[in-house]
Amino acid sequence: MLDKLQLEERLKKQLDFAVLIDREKNIFRQTHLTGHGRAENDAEHAWHMAIMAYLLREYANEEVDIGKVMLMCLIHDIVEIEAGDTYAYDEENLKTQKAREDAAKEHIYSVLPEDQKQELIALFDEFEAYQTPESKFAHAMDNLQPLLLNDDNDGGDWERHHVTYSQVYGRQSKTKLGSEQLFGVVDEILKEHVKKGHIRNE
Amino acid sequence: MLDKLQLEERLKKQLDFAVLIDREKNIFRQTHLTGHGRAENDAEHAWHMAIMAYLLREYANEEVDIGKVMLMCLIHDIVEIEAGDTYAYDEENLKTQKAREDAAKEHIYSVLPEDQKQELIALFDEFEAYQTPESKFAHAMDNLQPLLLNDDNDGGDWERHHVTYSQVYGRQSKTKLGSEQLFGVVDEILKEHVKKGHIRNE
Repeated sequence: MLDKLQLEERLKKQLDFAVLIDREKNIFRQTHLTGHGRAENDAEHAWHMAIMAYLLREYANEEVDIGKVMLMCLIHDIVEIEAGDTYAYDEENLKTQKAREDAAKEHIYSVLPEDQKQELIALFDEFEAYQTPESKFAHAMDNLQPLLLNDDNDGGDWERHHVTYSQVYGRQSKTKLGSEQLFGVVDEILKEHVKKGHIRNE
Repeated sequence: MLDKLQLEERLKKQLDFAVLIDREKNIFRQTHLTGHGRAENDAEHAWHMAIMAYLLREYANEEVDIGKVMLMCLIHDIVEIEAGDTYAYDEENLKTQKAREDAAKEHIYSVLPEDQKQELIALFDEFEAYQTPESKFAHAMDNLQPLLLNDDNDGGDWERHHVTYSQVYGRQSKTKLGSEQLFGVVDEILKEHVKKGHIRNE
C-alpha cells in the first residue's frame, strides 16, 4: 500500500503529465481540416482516429481489443511534442524519425509514475512494431483519417506536396494489413484522385 | 446477413459521419491552451479528457468500465457541432442548452447506421444524466481538464469572465461525485486562485 505522501507524489506526476501533453495541440500536421480548413494538429488527429476506430471496428481483419486500439490511437503521437511531426512522404526526416521519437518517448513518459511510463511506452512500441491486430488496425486509422480529410479537400494536400502514386500506395497499401475492406475504400478514393490528377501518376 | 449493397451503404454512412465530425475541431471553448495559448477546441478537449480518464481511473469513486468512459469523453461534445459550445458560467445560454443539444444529437447521429446512432445517443444521454459511475467519472474529467489548463495559465479564463467562487464551486463540487480524491486536488487549486484574486470571492 502506498502511504499518503507516496499517493500525492503519484498523483502529482500524473497531473504533470496531463499538463505536459497539452502541447500536442500545437504540433501541426500536413493534413488540412475539411472545408479547406487550417492545418490539423496531432491531438485532433488522434481524437478523430480513436472515434473512427470504434465505429469501424467491425471491419478489422482480426478481432481487436477496441479499448486498446483507442488508447493506442490517442497516445501514438505524444512523442511528437518533442520529436516533431514527420510527414509521411518526407524521405529525409523519415530517416531520423525513429531515433528522435525514441529519445522523446523516454523523456516524456518519464514524467509519469514508473508503471504507467512502462505501460504507455510498451503500447507505443506495440503500435510502431505493426505486428499485433490492434497495431495494424490503429495504423489503418492513422492512414484512413487524413485520407478522408484530403479527399474532402479535393486532394489538396497531395497536390501541394507533389505526392506520387507509388508514394501514396506504399503507405496506404499497409492499410490492408488492418482491414481488407477499408483498403477497398482507400483504393477507390486514391484511383479517383489519380484520375483527377491530384496524385501524380509517374 | 447484410448483402454487398447493404454493407456498402452501411460503410458509406460511417465514413460520412467520420467526415462530419471533423467540424468539431472548429468549435472553440473559453479555455485556453497552456503557455497562455489560443482558445482550445472541442476535439482537443475530448482527446485530453480521454487520456486523463485512462491515467487517473484509479481515483474513480466506483469501479468504471474505462473503455466506456473514454468513448463517452470522446463523443460528449459532438452535438456542439450544431448546438455550439455553452460556457459553463453563461446563465442565459445554459437555459437553452438542452433543447439545442437534443435537436443536434438527433440530426447529427442520424448520419450513422441506425444501431450506431442509437448506441451513441444512449451513451451521450448517459453522460448527460450524471447517474452511472462512468458518467460521473467522465464529468470529473470534463471539469478537471480545463481547470488544469486554467491553473497553468494563472487563472486567466476565470479572471476574463469574472467568475465567482460560488459559480466555480457549483460546477466543480460535482467532480466529487466522480472522484473524492481528485476533488481534493481541485479544491486546493481553487483555493489558491481565490487567494490570488483570480476567482472573485463574493
